[in-house]
Amino acid sequence: MDLRPVLYVVGILLSTLALSMALPMLVDLYFGSADWKVFFLCILTTSFFGGALVLSNAGGEGFTINIRQAFFLTTVSWIALATFASLPLWFSGLGLSFTDAFFEAMSGITTTGSTVMTDLDNAPKGILLWRAILQWLGGIGIIVMALSVLPFLKVGGMQLFRTESSENEKALPRAAKLASSIAYIYVALTFVCAICYHFSGLGLFDSFAHAMTTIATGGFSTFDASFGNFDKAWTEVIAIVFMVLGSLPFVLYLKAVRGNMRSLFTDSQVRWFLSIIAVCVITMVIYLVFQVHMEFGEALRRASFNIVSIITGTGYTDANYGAWGGFAVGLLFFLMVVGGCAGSTTCGIKIFRFQVLYAVTDVQIKKLLHPHGVFIPYYGGKPLPRGVPSSVMSFFFMFALSFSLLAVALSFVGLDFLTAMSGAATSIANVGPGLGDIIGPSGTFEALPDSAKWILCVGMLLGRLELFTVLVLFSPHFWQR
Amino acid sequence: MDLRPVLYVVGILLSTLALSMALPMLVDLYFGSADWKVFFLCILTTSFFGGALVLSNAGGEGFTINIRQAFFLTTVSWIALATFASLPLWFSGLGLSFTDAFFEAMSGITTTGSTVMTDLDNAPKGILLWRAILQWLGGIGIIVMALSVLPFLKVGGMQLFRTESSENEKALPRAAKLASSIAYIYVALTFVCAICYHFSGLGLFDSFAHAMTTIATGGFSTFDASFGNFDKAWTEVIAIVFMVLGSLPFVLYLKAVRGNMRSLFTDSQVRWFLSIIAVCVITMVIYLVFQVHMEFGEALRRASFNIVSIITGTGYTDANYGAWGGFAVGLLFFLMVVGGCAGSTTCGIKIFRFQVLYAVTDVQIKKLLHPHGVFIPYYGGKPLPRGVPSSVMSFFFMFALSFSLLAVALSFVGLDFLTAMSGAATSIANVGPGLGDIIGPSGTFEALPDSAKWILCVGMLLGRLELFTVLVLFSPHFWQR
Repeated sequence: MDLRPVLYVVGILLSTLALSMALPMLVDLYFGSADWKVFFLCILTTSFFGGALVLSNAGGEGFTINIRQAFFLTTVSWIALATFASLPLWFSGLGLSFTDAFFEAMSGITTTGSTVMTDLDNAPKGILLWRAILQWLGGIGIIVMALSVLPFLKVGGMQLFRTESSENEKALPRAAKLASSIAYIYVALTFVCAICYHFSGLGLFDSFAHAMTTIATGGFSTFDASFGNFDKAWTEVIAIVFMVLGSLPFVLYLKAVRGNMRSLFTDSQVRWFLSIIAVCVITMVIYLVFQVHMEFGEALRRASFNIVSIITGTGYTDANYGAWGGFAVGLLFFLMVVGGCAGSTTCGIKIFRFQVLYAVTDVQIKKLLHPHGVFIPYYGGKPLPRGVPSSVMSFFFMFALSFSLLAVALSFVGLDFLTAMSGAATSIANVGPGLGDIIGPSGTFEALPDSAKWILCVGMLLGRLELFTVLVLFSPHFWQR
Repeated sequence: MDLRPVLYVVGILLSTLALSMALPMLVDLYFGSADWKVFFLCILTTSFFGGALVLSNAGGEGFTINIRQAFFLTTVSWIALATFASLPLWFSGLGLSFTDAFFEAMSGITTTGSTVMTDLDNAPKGILLWRAILQWLGGIGIIVMALSVLPFLKVGGMQLFRTESSENEKALPRAAKLASSIAYIYVALTFVCAICYHFSGLGLFDSFAHAMTTIATGGFSTFDASFGNFDKAWTEVIAIVFMVLGSLPFVLYLKAVRGNMRSLFTDSQVRWFLSIIAVCVITMVIYLVFQVHMEFGEALRRASFNIVSIITGTGYTDANYGAWGGFAVGLLFFLMVVGGCAGSTTCGIKIFRFQVLYAVTDVQIKKLLHPHGVFIPYYGGKPLPRGVPSSVMSFFFMFALSFSLLAVALSFVGLDFLTAMSGAATSIANVGPGLGDIIGPSGTFEALPDSAKWILCVGMLLGRLELFTVLVLFSPHFWQR
C-alpha cells in the first residue's frame, strides 16, 4: 500500500489542528494564564509534524486514493488528531497523566464528552476552550466524513446517503464543495446558539464554549455540574432545541436554505427520531410524576432535557438521574445506543438503521406467513438498494458484539456491572456520562484504572468511525494482496 | 381461520399431560403425601378438557394444517400446557398463588428453571417430580418442534435444518417417525444420566429427578442449594457431560447410532460450541486464580460447572458466582444469551446463528474492500440458502429488541438495573437464575412483584418459541385476509 497520500492528508489535518490551537493560546494570554506557553509549544510541535508530512509526501499533480487507503486514512487520522490534541492537556498546569490527556482528547474529538477532569469551574479558560474546540472540530469532521467518505466506503448501510457527489471517482472534490456549504451552516448554527445562550443569562465565554459542544452534540461543559450550574429552565430549552438541531441530517438544512423547507418536516428519519423522543419523554414524565412523586413541570423539564441529552449523545446533565430509580436507569441505558439521524454530529446506532431493520423484519414476517410471496423492504418510499439490508444488519451485529466485548473487558479490569455496562455503551455510542456512582452524571471517569480508560478510548474510536472503518484494518483480507 | 385442527392437537397434548400426572400421583401415594388427591383431580380436569377438545374437533379422515394454523397452534399449545400444568402446583399444599404456580409451570415447560419455590428440601416428592417431568417433556417437545415445525415455518433461519422429512406437504407424518427415534435416544440418555448420578452417590429419586432436568437443560433441582447440596466433584462432572450432551444436535446421535460416529465430531456447530466453552472456562479460571485467589482445582471445577450450566441454559448452581466480582457477573451475563446448538433442548440465540452472522459479516468486510467482487456466505461448507441470512439477522435484531423491552418493562415495575437486565436475559434465553442478590444463584424469583413474574413469563414463552412464532400473531399481516 502506498502510504504517501495517507500521510499527506494526515499532515494537512495536523496543520489545521495546530492552527486551531492559536485561539486558546490567545485566550490564555488575555486572561493571563501561564498555559499560553504550552499552547505555543504545541502549535510549533504539531505544525512541525504536520508540515513535514505534507512536504515529504506531496505528489506532483494530486493523487487518487483507493478504498484500502481511505479506510487506513480515516482511522489513522483520527488517532493522530487525538494524540496531538492531547499535548496541550498533558503539558498544561493541570497535572494530567498522558493516559488522562489522551482520554480527554479522544473524548473531545469523537464528540463523546466523557471527562477525567475535575474542578472545571477553576480550570484555565484556554484549556476549557480547547476542549470545546475539539468537540466542535470533531462534529464538523464527522458530518463531512458521513457525507463524503462513508457512503463511498459503503460502511454499515451509509451508501443509502450517497449524493450525486459520491457516485463516481471524482467523489472527493465534489464532496469538498458540499462540505464547505455544510460548514457555513454549522458555523451559523453555532453563532445563533451562542447568542441564545447569552440572552438566557450565560457569560460570553460560557455561551460560546457551550454552543460549540451543543451543536457538536459533544457535551463538554465548563462547569463540573454541567447545566446544573446554571439551573435555568430557558437555558435548558435552548440546549434541547440545539441538541436536536445538531442531530438532524445537515443536508436538510442545505435544502432548507435553498428554499425547500418542506423536506425538513417530511423526512422519515426526522419523524421517527422526534417520535421516539416524544414517546420516551412522555413515559418518563408519567414515571417521575406517579412513582417518584415529582411535580409535573419539574418532571417535564428533567425528563426532556436528560432524554434529549442522552439520545443525541450529547451528555449534558442537570440532575443526578441515577437517583430516579431503576426505570430511569434502565431506559436511559438503552437510549444511549439509539443515537440521532445519519449525516448529523450524533453517534450510536442511528435512526435510519432502526428503520431499515424494521422494514426488513416486517418483510420477514410477511414471508413467514406467505412463503411463496415476493416482498421487498422499503426505505423512505423507495425499495432498499441491494446490499443495504445486510450491510445494516452486519453493523447491528458488530455493534452488539463490540459492546459485549468492551463490557466484558471493562469488568475484567475490575469495574462493577453497572459501570462496565454503561461505560461500554456510553463510549461506543459517544454519549459522555455513564450510569452509577462512579461514571454517572454526578461522577467523572477520573477514578477508573488506566486500563479501563484505554479500553474506553478504543470504544469511542470504534463507535465514532462506524465500527467497520476500524475493524476492516484487523481483517486478514485487508492485508492480503 | 379454521380452529378445529388447532383445538384437536391441543386436546391431544392436554391428554398426554394428564397422563403424565399419574406418575407424581403414584409417588405421592407411595410416600403418603396428601397431594395425591390434588394430582388425581387435576388428571380428571385436564383429561376432561383434553378429551372434549379431541372429540369435538375430530375431523373425518385427518386434516392438513396451513402455516397460519401452525403458528397459532404452536403458541396456543404452549400456553395451554403451562396453564394446566400449573394446576397441581396451585392446588397443592404449598400455598402458591396462581401467578406463582403459572410462573413455575411456564418455567418448567419452557425448560427455563427459574423458581419461586423455597424449602424444596422438604417439599412433597410428587411436586418435585412434577417439576422435573415438566422440564423433561418441554425438552423433548422442543426438539420435536425444532425438527418438524420450525424448519417448515422457516423461523429465524431454522430452515437450515430441513431434513428430507420437512421438505414437502407430508412434513408432519414423516417428522413423527423421526421424532420417535429421537425420543428413544432422549429416554436412553436420561436413564444413563440417572444411573451415573446414582453411582456418584445420589439417591434413586434425586438421580432421576436431576437426570430429567439435566438432559432437558432445564435446571430445576430438588434442593434449594441445587448442586451445592451434594458438593461432590464427580456429580458435577456427570452434570457437565450430560448438560453438554443435551445441548448438541440430537440428529447427530441418530446418525451415531446408525454407525456414523464421525459426524458428531466434525459438525461445525459442535466444534464452535465446545471451543466457546473452552475459551470461556480458561479465561474464567485465569481470573479466579489470579484475581480472586482461588485454588486452581477449585477454580477449574467452579468455572467449568457454572459456565456450562449458564451457556447451555440449564441453570444449576453450586456456588454464589455473584460473589466472584464484576468479571464473573459480566461474562456470565453475556453467556446467558449464547445458548447451545440448534436441534437440542437449549435455548438462547444458538451457535448456528452466530456462525451465520460471522459468515455474513466476513463477506461484508470482503465487499467493503472489493466493492465489485461477488462473495457468498458459507455454512458448513455449503453456500447459505437464499433467505437464511436475513432470517437469522432479523432474529438477532428481534432478540435484542425483545430483550431491551423486557428489561425496560421489568425496571418500570420497580426492579433494579442488575435484576432487570439479568431477569430479561435469563427469561428470554430460558436459563433459570439471574444475577444479583434477589434472583441470583442464591436467591429465588419469589420476592418479585406479580407484574414482574408475568413479564418474565412472556419472556420465557417468546424465547422458547424462537420469538417469531409468537410475534407473528401480533402482526396485522397475520389477521389480514
